[in-house]
Order: sequence, then structure tokens, then C-alpha cells
Amino acid sequence: MSTSVAGPEIERLVQLLARLPGLGPRSARRVALHLIRKRETLLGPLTDALRVAQERILTCSVCGNIDTRDPCTICSDERRDSTTIVVVESVGDLWALERAGATRARYHVLGGALSPLDGVGPSDLNLPALVARIAKGGVSEVILAVNATVEGQTTAHYIIDLLADYPVKVTRLAHGVPVGGELDYLDDGTLATAMRQRTAF
Amino acid sequence: MSTSVAGPEIERLVQLLARLPGLGPRSARRVALHLIRKRETLLGPLTDALRVAQERILTCSVCGNIDTRDPCTICSDERRDSTTIVVVESVGDLWALERAGATRARYHVLGGALSPLDGVGPSDLNLPALVARIAKGGVSEVILAVNATVEGQTTAHYIIDLLADYPVKVTRLAHGVPVGGELDYLDDGTLATAMRQRTAF
Repeated sequence: MSTSVAGPEIERLVQLLARLPGLGPRSARRVALHLIRKRETLLGPLTDALRVAQERILTCSVCGNIDTRDPCTICSDERRDSTTIVVVESVGDLWALERAGATRARYHVLGGALSPLDGVGPSDLNLPALVARIAKGGVSEVILAVNATVEGQTTAHYIIDLLADYPVKVTRLAHGVPVGGELDYLDDGTLATAMRQRTAF
Repeated sequence: MSTSVAGPEIERLVQLLARLPGLGPRSARRVALHLIRKRETLLGPLTDALRVAQERILTCSVCGNIDTRDPCTICSDERRDSTTIVVVESVGDLWALERAGATRARYHVLGGALSPLDGVGPSDLNLPALVARIAKGGVSEVILAVNATVEGQTTAHYIIDLLADYPVKVTRLAHGVPVGGELDYLDDGTLATAMRQRTAF
């Protein structure tokens, strides 16, 4: 191995870093060296933050979000609209919607999307908890904020079937031209959808 | 902040990850979520590896390399040629030469290159230890394996002056066409140098 000259400890660190998304062997070596150079200001604090994450981060038993409390901060926040549930594929999507300040509703994190090719079936998703929340009553709208991919849309249709017998409105995010987007760079499907679903000024 | 909804612990983890080279806020969030998802198989082992790195990794007092022992593995290896010292800018460069199996000599890590623009002067580099190693005798060749950048070449000339009074041969890496390189994609300077320094078949 490349870094064996520096001893098994550094080699192991580089190998683990290389397993992070977006990092390969080369960038993992660069990160390891950077961490060792910044031992006091970065390596120490990062080690502590990871240990805290490992010890204290929980999955919310209500919605599937991650937090250091269960139920999570959003599920515990009485000011949030509990009559609407925004269904997302991942915690990353939840964060994105929160960054955008897109909603004050509650969430439900599926933990993925249906994908027969990848072996992801309904039992792999956080679906029973969603049905239970709807069955309990008090929810008037479910917003399916899944990705505009084949997997996301498959998942959306599965959930629509699942909730068919409950008195709840199921909606999905609008398709169209991204804000700031230039028409010339958009794909045909988005353009056609945006044209079909045009709105009055 | 984007991740404040997940509590200060995750926010802090994301902020620290975003300070790693090559990671921005978006990829830091992705890495944090990946780590939390792989709590047992990746987060735990990585935390341990970072703690070991923090506690056990030392800078070699002889050559400036990093290792869990001082002197480092290379400086302690009696089988390595102690009459030749390869001077490199960084530990990453040392690793690269070791990966290539380019030399069985010893190393000296400068910890950077002279760069007046960045405020890096001779006193910021590991130069006194290099001179001391040469002054002690027993070294017949110093190979300046610095980068082929302005900073690297400036550093090389500074070291040549520094060692002028010692009976030691100073050499540098060959310039030329990279092995596997296509002429059409090479810059003019490399092509001109490769032509000028052509060798007999």
C-alpha cells in the first residue's frame, strides 16, 4: 500500500477516509495529511464531533429523521403544522427543504426509494410508520416530495395506492423551469411539462 | 444554518467536515449523513482511527516525515541508503515517491516551498535540520525532488546556495515527457525541455 511507509495507523485512517462518498485513495491521503497537519485545530475537534455523533444521534421513531432527541426537534415543535406531512426519500432532502424554508409542515423520511433493480422493496422503506401516522387521524395533506426520478415516481405511486382508503389529500411538488434556470439548457421533458402546466400571470 | 434543524451536534460535524480539503458544505453534509447511516461499520472505526492518529502520530526529528515512531520507519531502516538524501516539499510527495518505488535513499521533508507571495520564507522550512545532516558528513548526494513549480525551483536554488560549501553532489529530478504521456497534450515548456535534454537510445 502507498502509505505503508508511514505505519499501519495512517494506512488504516487513509483506507477509512477513502470509503467516504466523493473521496478516492488520492483525496483520502490528502485529507489524512491535512488532518495530521492541523492536529490541534481540526483533527481533535473532528474526532470529538464524530464521537458525539456516534454516541448521541438517534433516528426519530415518529418520522425517521436523525437528531440527538427522539422524537426529533421537528416532530417535537408544536408550532409546526401537524396536519400536513411532507414525505421525503432521505434526511438530506429534508435538510434541503428546511434550508429553502419551503415548508412549516412535519416530515416523514422514507430512507430511500423503491428500486427493484437495486433490490429496494416496500419493506425496506419506512412505510408502516407513515400509514400509522395517517391512520391516527389529524393529517389532511400528504406532500410527496420525492425525487423526480423513476425510483421517486414509482415510490410516489406506491404511496398513493397505500393511502387510497384514507381521507387525506395527496399532492406532489410542481415540475417546471428551475428558478434562475435558462430554457436553452433544460431537458425536453422539463420544458414540455413546464409548458403543459403553465400558470396565469 | 442548513442543518440546524438536526441539532448543534450534527451542525458542528458538518462544519468541521467542510474544512477538509476537497469538501464543501454540500459534500460535507453528504459525508455526515453517510457516516451516521454507517454508524457501526464506518463512523466508529473512523473515530477510533482519528483518535489513534491524534495520540500517536509524531513528526520525525531527523527528516520531518510523519510516523508513529521517532525517528521514523525510513530513518530507522538500516537497509536504506544513508549516503543519499531526497529532499521533498511535503509528506505527500514522500508517499508518492515511495509508492513509485523510485528510491531506496533517505528523505528530508521541507514542509513547504519558498513563496514570498504566500509569506513562506526560509525560516518556515525544515532547512536547519537538512544542513545539520549534511554537516555531520556521510552524505554524498542530495536529490532535490521538489515540484516543478516556481516555488519549487526557487526553493531548489536556495538549497543549492545553502549547501555550496559542503562536499556533496546536488541533483534534481529529470524533466521531460511523462511516461504514457502524449506529445499533443504536453505544454511547450515540457516539450522544449524534453527535446533539449534528449538521451541516446
